[in-house]
Order: sequence, then structure tokens, then C-alpha cells
Amino acid sequence: MNLEPGQVGADDRGLLLGDGLFETIRLYRGHPFRLEAHLSRLEKGAHRLGLEVPPDLRARIGALLEGGGGWRERDGALRVTLTRGPGWGLLPPQDPNPSLLLALRPWPSGAPPLLEVEAALFGWLDERALTSGIKGTGYLERIQALRESIRVGAEEALLRNSMGRLVEGAAANLFGVREGVLLAPGVRDGALAGITRGILLGLAEELGVEVLERGIDPVELPDLTELFLSSTLREVAAVVRVEGVAIGDGRPGPLTSRLREEFRALVDRERGGGTL
Amino acid sequence: MNLEPGQVGADDRGLLLGDGLFETIRLYRGHPFRLEAHLSRLEKGAHRLGLEVPPDLRARIGALLEGGGGWRERDGALRVTLTRGPGWGLLPPQDPNPSLLLALRPWPSGAPPLLEVEAALFGWLDERALTSGIKGTGYLERIQALRESIRVGAEEALLRNSMGRLVEGAAANLFGVREGVLLAPGVRDGALAGITRGILLGLAEELGVEVLERGIDPVELPDLTELFLSSTLREVAAVVRVEGVAIGDGRPGPLTSRLREEFRALVDRERGGGTL
Repeated sequence: MNLEPGQVGADDRGLLLGDGLFETIRLYRGHPFRLEAHLSRLEKGAHRLGLEVPPDLRARIGALLEGGGGWRERDGALRVTLTRGPGWGLLPPQDPNPSLLLALRPWPSGAPPLLEVEAALFGWLDERALTSGIKGTGYLERIQALRESIRVGAEEALLRNSMGRLVEGAAANLFGVREGVLLAPGVRDGALAGITRGILLGLAEELGVEVLERGIDPVELPDLTELFLSSTLREVAAVVRVEGVAIGDGRPGPLTSRLREEFRALVDRERGGGTL
Repeated sequence: MNLEPGQVGADDRGLLLGDGLFETIRLYRGHPFRLEAHLSRLEKGAHRLGLEVPPDLRARIGALLEGGGGWRERDGALRVTLTRGPGWGLLPPQDPNPSLLLALRPWPSGAPPLLEVEAALFGWLDERALTSGIKGTGYLERIQALRESIRVGAEEALLRNSMGRLVEGAAANLFGVREGVLLAPGVRDGALAGITRGILLGLAEELGVEVLERGIDPVELPDLTELFLSSTLREVAAVVRVEGVAIGDGRPGPLTSRLREEFRALVDRERGGGTL
């Protein structure tokens, strides 16, 4: 089928079955931040799904950035979506024709992301799932978790894994600080291997902070001095209340603030150092 | 955006985030089987998602069936997909413009569905999930479960819930027979409220069969005399081996065969009795 620009076939398995995965990459003044890390994660996920990443992916991203819109100077976000292409039925076609969708948009757009949020416990992830750790397009549980959180007056959802441990925000990695130790739910806990998360763990190591990769039990929330989220779009955001109860003194903690500063400094250093 | 027929915007939340749900309805010689039950389930799921079903849904289905293609005489399957329409970001837009996609295809097409399958244990569902029981488009875990099952020489996957109980096939409800009792994993176990499942439970009741709605523990597989699947597309299919071990005598059991016959008889009676 000849597709119009900005459209996809209604028989696309990404649309019909969530048979696809994606990446969101920040553009800092036109520089795609940690593009290779994102594309590497995309490739690993695609490999697990038995999906081939089109060999011209990088060339197409480059052409998009060099095309109209002045994106080489702008702040924005690049969304890369790869689906298994057309096909009916659960079983993938023998010889799939994957769909690659690239889209750029300004970011932040409208109000900037909140640096401090109140969260509620909604939504479940299963760390045993075959798709755990793959950034698949199936975000409905996360959408519902966020909707429910907003319904009860919060701004963010914290999702639990099969053990009931908190492992992620609605679309962000989660960190806690307990007795000076950084708790960082990881892939084996059901969390995504976040690019920003990986950077923050490196920064924490440089700061000499002890890190434990594990989920956070809701019963230990009163013992946490800090709780925060990381993601490509939000960078670092403090969770200052959970289910109405303050974390620490109810303000962003020192490690949260320090890591946010260090992350921003890193972005400033790399900005303009694009390799694409 | 003006969409071409058979296409959808690349900014559709169904494609980007799996923010949508669907139904598959059998056409038996042009008669949409149990259409109202399917549309009722769609409406319940949409309500839980805060999504409005377009008021002209039935009219559009009717127009499609009466249109070209001779569908009023054919066997087929109607897919109804409803998504939240265009929109970036996890949080749904305040004023969404849902996309409704209708598609007809011949069914069975090619080889008919297997009446006897061998299954393997792959894939996880969480009965606690906010989206449990909603027929969302996010089928990636099920696709992976089926791919893994085929990789090990089986033809079907049996998925487990958070308690490790078997609750569904890759895209089908699951039933077991133990000491003459029909075990039927239900919604609270993480299974979908299948339309075919509901019909089979009614038929079992008419036959005087005792029914227990619960998941099936893998350790009780040796005690099962029958295991079978139900779905709109497959109707009733026996699971004759699991992980290489025979269920009962390794052939479709008497209740499986009886329910399949009764179901087929029901279809024959209703065929041609379409209300649309």
C-alpha cells in the first residue's frame, strides 16, 4: 500500500496488536541526546521480538533532522516507532514488512514537566513477563495508572511488580534513598533499562553513593528520605508525597537535586556534540 | 487530518501507546454472531478507559456488511478497533477524537484452526492489573508467548497469572476438567470474559456439569482429564499435550467434544437470524 506521509495502514500490527516498540529521544538544540544508547536499546528489543531494524534507520533520522523545520537548532523530542507492519492474526507473518515511523515535536511544549510530583500507587507490571524490559508500545496499563492517580488528586502513578514492589513511575524509572543508599529498581525487578536511569547511576557512582538495584517495598516508604523519577522527557523529578504522605521532609532531597544538577551539566556539555 | 480509507494517522494513540481496545466478531454466512454481546463488552471496556464509543457504531457496521463484497452471504470475521485517536504523551487529551476502524476478512482463511493443539507454558497476565479484563490492543506478551511456544515445538501458549495459575491461551479462554468438574478461569483470575466462554458455561450448565471459576495450577495438570480452549475465531479446541505430557489419554475428551458439538449446533440455529 502507498502510505500518505504521517499515516499508517489500518492493518498494521502495531495498531491492531501492539506488535511494536519505540524510543523517545531528546533533542537539545538539535542534538539528539544519547541517540546511540536509544537505538541500541531499540535493536535489543527488536531482536527479542524477532523484528529487524531497517538498516537505513540512522540515515532516515539524519535526513529528518536536516530537513525542514529548523530542527538542528531546536529543543524537541524524536519518537522512533518500529512495528511488525501489516498482518492479521496473533502469529507474525513469516516475512514481515516492518513499519518505521519517525516523528519530531517541540519539547517541552506548553507547561514544562513538573520537578516535584505527588504520586499514588496504581498499576502493575510483571517482571516475569516475556516482554519485560522491552519498550513495547502497549502502555494502556500505564495510561490507566496515570488516569487513576489524577482522579485521586495525585500527578503521577507508582507501579508495582508481581512481588508488590514499587518499580516504576507511569513512564519513568524510580529511585529511592534509604539510609543514604540509592535504591534503583532494575530490569530484573520489571523496570525498563532507562537511558536517563543509566546516566544517573553512573553519576551516583562518581559521587560515591552506594547503589542497591531492587524494588521498593511500600512498607518502607516511611524510611525513605528521598524518592524520585527519571525519564528522557522529564529528566529528574522528585516525588514529594505518596498517597498523601510526605517522603522525607516533603521537598526534593539533596541527592535528587544534586543528580538533577549533574545531569543538566552533562546535557550542557554534550549539547552540540552530536555525532549524527 | 483527512484519512485515506484503510489508513490511520501516525499520531494515533492506538498505534503509539496501545491506547485502544477491540472486538473480533464471527460472520457465519453473513450473520454477525453474538454481535450485541461483543459490542456490550466493547462499551464496558471503553467506559473503563474513559473512551466514548461512537453512537453510529452499529450503523457503520451495518453499512459495511451491506456494502460491496457480498458479506451478507460469506463466512468471515469483523474486527472493530476503537482507539483514543490522535494525541502525544501518556495523559489522554481532554477532548479526544476517537478512531473507529472496521475491517472484514474471510474466515477461516487458508487452513482452518486446529481442533487439537499441543501447548507450552509461556507468558504472564496480571489479574490485579487496572486493564485486566479489558480487551486492549496490547497483545505483545501474547505474541511472544505464542512465538516461544512454537519455538519449542508446541502450537499454543498457556499464560499464567500472578499466582502462577494457568488462566488463558495465547488468545483464548482456558478450561480444564478435573474429577468431572469444569474448571473455568474467570475475570478475577485475569482471564477475559470471553463471549464463546460465556456460551460454553451456559451449555455446561444445561448439561448438568459442575463449574468452578478458578485458575488451573500447573501441578494439577496430571489430574486433569481434559483441557481445552475457546475463542471467537477457534470456537472450541482441545489441548491434548502440555509441555510434552498428555492430558488425559492425549485425545480430545468427551466434554470438550460435546461442548464443541453443542456450540456448533447453536451457531447453526442462530445463523441467518441476524438482527442487524
